[in-house]
Amino acid sequence: MHLARTNATFVSPIVESRRWLQGVTFSEDQPLLNLSQAAPADPPPTGLRQAMAEAVLNQTSAHLYGPVLGNPDLRAALAEQISRHYETEVTAEEVAITSGCNQAFAATIQSLCAEGDEVILPTPWYFNHKMWLDMQGVTTLPLAVGAGMLPEVDKAEALITDRTRAIALVTPNNPCGVEYPAALLDAFYDLAQRYGLTLIVDETYRDFDSRSGAPHGLFQRSDWHNTLVHLYSFSKAYRLTGHRVGAIAAAPARLLEMEKFLDTVTICPAQVGQIGAKWGIENLDQWLAGERAEILKRRAAIEAGFAPLSDKGWQLLGLGAYFAYVAHPFEQSSDEIAQRLLREAGMLLLPGTMFTPEGAPEGHRQFRIAFANVDESGIHEMLSRLAKFAG
Amino acid sequence: MHLARTNATFVSPIVESRRWLQGVTFSEDQPLLNLSQAAPADPPPTGLRQAMAEAVLNQTSAHLYGPVLGNPDLRAALAEQISRHYETEVTAEEVAITSGCNQAFAATIQSLCAEGDEVILPTPWYFNHKMWLDMQGVTTLPLAVGAGMLPEVDKAEALITDRTRAIALVTPNNPCGVEYPAALLDAFYDLAQRYGLTLIVDETYRDFDSRSGAPHGLFQRSDWHNTLVHLYSFSKAYRLTGHRVGAIAAAPARLLEMEKFLDTVTICPAQVGQIGAKWGIENLDQWLAGERAEILKRRAAIEAGFAPLSDKGWQLLGLGAYFAYVAHPFEQSSDEIAQRLLREAGMLLLPGTMFTPEGAPEGHRQFRIAFANVDESGIHEMLSRLAKFAG
Repeated sequence: MHLARTNATFVSPIVESRRWLQGVTFSEDQPLLNLSQAAPADPPPTGLRQAMAEAVLNQTSAHLYGPVLGNPDLRAALAEQISRHYETEVTAEEVAITSGCNQAFAATIQSLCAEGDEVILPTPWYFNHKMWLDMQGVTTLPLAVGAGMLPEVDKAEALITDRTRAIALVTPNNPCGVEYPAALLDAFYDLAQRYGLTLIVDETYRDFDSRSGAPHGLFQRSDWHNTLVHLYSFSKAYRLTGHRVGAIAAAPARLLEMEKFLDTVTICPAQVGQIGAKWGIENLDQWLAGERAEILKRRAAIEAGFAPLSDKGWQLLGLGAYFAYVAHPFEQSSDEIAQRLLREAGMLLLPGTMFTPEGAPEGHRQFRIAFANVDESGIHEMLSRLAKFAG
Repeated sequence: MHLARTNATFVSPIVESRRWLQGVTFSEDQPLLNLSQAAPADPPPTGLRQAMAEAVLNQTSAHLYGPVLGNPDLRAALAEQISRHYETEVTAEEVAITSGCNQAFAATIQSLCAEGDEVILPTPWYFNHKMWLDMQGVTTLPLAVGAGMLPEVDKAEALITDRTRAIALVTPNNPCGVEYPAALLDAFYDLAQRYGLTLIVDETYRDFDSRSGAPHGLFQRSDWHNTLVHLYSFSKAYRLTGHRVGAIAAAPARLLEMEKFLDTVTICPAQVGQIGAKWGIENLDQWLAGERAEILKRRAAIEAGFAPLSDKGWQLLGLGAYFAYVAHPFEQSSDEIAQRLLREAGMLLLPGTMFTPEGAPEGHRQFRIAFANVDESGIHEMLSRLAKFAG
């Protein structure tokens, strides 16, 4: 039977879980707690909205095609921000803007892989990474994480074949929440370099890292152009999910290859989102620091309140950025428990099976909790509903 | 040598031709006439801009993720508009919104093809279609157009193999400008149906068709779900190029397959563009009729003013929508003449080599003129500069 590209992958877990909600009703004393998606629920700050509105009304270029790799002013602003954040020097030519960070990953893979090539993904993985590889005829080499939900360099090395092109890491991790130590990233960089692979580091959740200072030193490597591709998203930092703005930092020659793909798949990133992102970089440092502090408080609330769940056999496997990753104590699969949690406890969580290879037993024991959009009282409510849930 | 997906195709002609402009200066009495891209240079009407600004300021959902296949209100509005335009009945479930019409094509191909499959494209082709096929490991079967720059059904039939999945037509055509007769589309539909292929009809320039009434009867076929995928763009109709809004009409089951791709490559179309498109559908019928009349006037100006060029050996091969497609009388290749026209006559035109297979002789004799954004006096200027150009 003939299989088209899309037949080679699964339905997006976000789409799938939205379908679960259809026809389910929630009582007033137990309203829906949606912990399925990492998506801010509030609009960006007033100033940013005003800047966008002003451009829409009065700036012709806000409505016209822009350069495929993004507007020069935003590329320059982001390059400067990356330089500060990573204590390094990155230029506008080393940065490109994409229609969201998923597209940044897609463009990177297109510039590296063809049919039958391989990419190493630690599991649990970010499902859209797996889906893109499936739809490109690229084989995913799953690398089950070890202690602390961290991937291990020697296990990764054992997977490499002559068809392997890249290792893709996400830090802070989606779905596990863990922040990868700088030394681990260094070790993966060395591994990638040794085998002539590309190390893709998706830092969508960079702005909610609990650590201060540069999260890694990869941009400071004199030869990073050969090995590193860094991905970023403006969606979480400035609440721009509906505007689709992501970014790539890579060698200029790599970006020119990706440009062919980006031109063909979207022509250019939407202008209004780019205008908002630039305004955010220039004006929202302090506001973003407050957002981070709030997320860290919510994270602390989970850590502090987890004991009653531990008593019932739950495990907190990973915690950070927007996510908690947990193991449940029940016999049933997380697939079934997810449905019961929705109907009986009014909570939407994504089961670990959505982040792990088919047939991997661990996925059936696990859940991702996208806690960032739930305030502290919501987090207490979530913990209490989970503790009460009898399995 | 290992070739990644992007290595399998060429640099986008639009990107390439923008590079030609770098460092070229133009005199005051011969300013640049840019006839390279089909892109409105003015912003959308005030009312549409106000609707967008209002949403950006006051509507939270304008900043949040929306459904992968587009907002239900826009899908419904477009379905109704398609129903009117094609004198048929299309529902919201048969319509999806994409981040531009290039992405609509990309999603369609992903849902139909895998490595080594084939798609028939009439040549001259729209280059981004060819680029997407190249980057997907899909073989393009070029179908050289015949009389009147129209593709011929029997020649298409002769190309079909058991790996062929689709025939992609563009009407009104980019780059040739010609409007495909309804009977020709019917015949291609019958051919596609007979061989179990999909007929993709890209109608980006639909709103500038010189004919009145439904341009074809394909939506009226009771079995169109099995054979037809229709593509559309809001970019030209409402001047929304910088917002990235396109659309697909297809069987709901096909759209659900495409949803996997769209989720992974952009998650959702940008909200502000969708808000603008919906406002346009509801408010800009009359305005758009005026835009069409203006474009038709420009087209008439080319037709009426072409005689002096014919006298010098130029040929008008096709004319309509945003484009004139012409043959030049010179010995040199259009590649070289394009450079000389830029430097000596201050005109940027894309050579036919950008729309034809490598090695095809006709591309070297041809040019695409994207005339729609040049007013009548600019069109006279263009014709006069071309007539003076000595080759």
